[in-house]
Amino acid sequence: MRKHNFCAGPAALPTAVLERARDEMLDYQGRGLSVMEMSHRSATYMAIAEKAEADLRDLLAVPANYRVLFTQGGATQQFAAVPYNLLGPGGRANVINTGIWSKKAIAEARHLFGDVHVAASSEAGGHLAVPRPEEIVLSNDAAYLHFTANETIGGLAFDYIPGNAPGSEERGPRRPDGSEAPLVCDMSSSILSGPLDVSRFGVIYAGAQKNIGPAGLVVVIVRDDLLDRARTDMPSLFSYQALADAGSMINTPATYSWYLAGLVFEWLKDEVGGLAAMDAINARKAARLYGAIDASDFYSNPIAIPNRSRMNVPFVLNDSRLDKPFLAEAEAAGLLNLQGHRSVGGMRASLYNAVPEAAVEALVAFMADFEKRRG
Amino acid sequence: MRKHNFCAGPAALPTAVLERARDEMLDYQGRGLSVMEMSHRSATYMAIAEKAEADLRDLLAVPANYRVLFTQGGATQQFAAVPYNLLGPGGRANVINTGIWSKKAIAEARHLFGDVHVAASSEAGGHLAVPRPEEIVLSNDAAYLHFTANETIGGLAFDYIPGNAPGSEERGPRRPDGSEAPLVCDMSSSILSGPLDVSRFGVIYAGAQKNIGPAGLVVVIVRDDLLDRARTDMPSLFSYQALADAGSMINTPATYSWYLAGLVFEWLKDEVGGLAAMDAINARKAARLYGAIDASDFYSNPIAIPNRSRMNVPFVLNDSRLDKPFLAEAEAAGLLNLQGHRSVGGMRASLYNAVPEAAVEALVAFMADFEKRRG
Repeated sequence: MRKHNFCAGPAALPTAVLERARDEMLDYQGRGLSVMEMSHRSATYMAIAEKAEADLRDLLAVPANYRVLFTQGGATQQFAAVPYNLLGPGGRANVINTGIWSKKAIAEARHLFGDVHVAASSEAGGHLAVPRPEEIVLSNDAAYLHFTANETIGGLAFDYIPGNAPGSEERGPRRPDGSEAPLVCDMSSSILSGPLDVSRFGVIYAGAQKNIGPAGLVVVIVRDDLLDRARTDMPSLFSYQALADAGSMINTPATYSWYLAGLVFEWLKDEVGGLAAMDAINARKAARLYGAIDASDFYSNPIAIPNRSRMNVPFVLNDSRLDKPFLAEAEAAGLLNLQGHRSVGGMRASLYNAVPEAAVEALVAFMADFEKRRG
Repeated sequence: MRKHNFCAGPAALPTAVLERARDEMLDYQGRGLSVMEMSHRSATYMAIAEKAEADLRDLLAVPANYRVLFTQGGATQQFAAVPYNLLGPGGRANVINTGIWSKKAIAEARHLFGDVHVAASSEAGGHLAVPRPEEIVLSNDAAYLHFTANETIGGLAFDYIPGNAPGSEERGPRRPDGSEAPLVCDMSSSILSGPLDVSRFGVIYAGAQKNIGPAGLVVVIVRDDLLDRARTDMPSLFSYQALADAGSMINTPATYSWYLAGLVFEWLKDEVGGLAAMDAINARKAARLYGAIDASDFYSNPIAIPNRSRMNVPFVLNDSRLDKPFLAEAEAAGLLNLQGHRSVGGMRASLYNAVPEAAVEALVAFMADFEKRRG
């Protein structure tokens, strides 16, 4: 029996997707073999891969001048791949620090290239609100501005696209000298949670294991005018240009994960009805849980309301002695993986696309009941 | 209905493994979620990961001073990771060239570090036999000697461990000055096909998609005295030391592929009966197919008999005008993926561990029948 899974990642997948993967496991559509057992260059597999890309493009309305890449190594590998591909001669990474994942991106760029300009940071305030647009100051040698759309651990999300005033015609953020820098976004934990204006970005990347599919796959969406500035002294597999030229098949890609991602994209299109519909569901789920937290003196979440993540809802029991019984009783009630990240403690409920509204209802009901009995 | 799948990779997996994956897809052992949906740090998943490593160690009798890593990016990523980790100051990559995959390893080391010493090559002879042991000459600045145990495309396999006379007590190959260099082996298409003396090697790596599991996972086995010579200017995820320190979980690993690899290891232990038993089966399969080819004037394979790959059997129809009907009729008879690699043409039957003897019997019977009708 399936339980309610609030894991931050690898995260819940739609039951309908898993059912289809199960049914096709031994014999994909009468071909006599599993998708896992197919050559990535076979006509059957190429059709699977191409449909996945087409569906993703359709969902996000990806403009024609963007390439969609399916690669490996998680967002962490992109922390290296982004500067390798974009720094160019004399360029410097500019990064906004909003928490643990931004700091990892900063650390890797620094590790490889020595210097990073932190264009804004919410660290002094404990990462309870993202920097205001006017606080973001690029360096004149900014090769790009990187930000983390949604901090999975902190539960902190941008409510605007940095460098772009809402409704503005500007594409990227500007350096002090007025020139435009490409915007790079780690969207691992929020991609596909709602509609997106891809044209505002130079590069979007996302580890699959939250809203896309199984861990090990990474999707990169890159504007094609950015493909020509890569360093040469980097692993060949990191090259966006080489990946684009090879249709993401420089070598054997993570074929089965790519297939599962395709099933998730199909589910979003055909079952959910697209990203506007998904957006509305995600808004309801988040409102329901934050509403329950805010209405109680027993639970709390400290994040500034406009920056509260819809995907990851960290909360604490105001009496932390009740953490253990809360988690044990939740698990017994079929509510899994509510423990906060080991670096911060407390609780965290991740409400990714595949977490149904019924799961949130069950969680809210459990929380109310627990408070009543223990509060 | 499952058909006979001779794909060179991603390759056939044991039907019993796929059945188990299917049965556990929606609910792993009553936990209420799929393995794909579990935190890699959860107790349930950690037990899966640890059992997989323990079973692999058991199968290959991996000595205690070796670390087993589960990483991503295919063997191609290891073409970069090996020199990054092993070159050290002033060291040079030494590589034996036996075909397309060795050449890719050479090209990547050259791309990153400029110079590679080709310690021996079978290229002049068209890669029909591996270099003899006495032809292998290392440079005095050899940081390691790399070889490809089995060339998947050429169907050429080493019948000895380079630098080690059979039965010798030597561990690695020697430089001209008499010092020992670590031996590095790309074992992607032959690992687990039979017993192995791991202690002869410094590093063994293998992309999973032949004898281990789904594409996207890579297994690296590294002797622990080699962990301290890595460059610092490389992507953090490439560091064997960092991977070893983190139990292969620097970031989220390819959890589902790792789980499936574990199921394959269990199958090898519990169903097949270990690598000596697997070795005997693989020997019978290869003997049956090469025997049929050699007994015919209609089919041929040009590789020197001691160097014929047991895993990948390339062969040609002596009348290449019959290639298309051969492939079409084979497919109609339920024999899939017999087309040779696009770079060489002809046919190729890959006989990895998961290809049962019955598949080889069916192929041999089809080949005889086709010859009778068309020869």
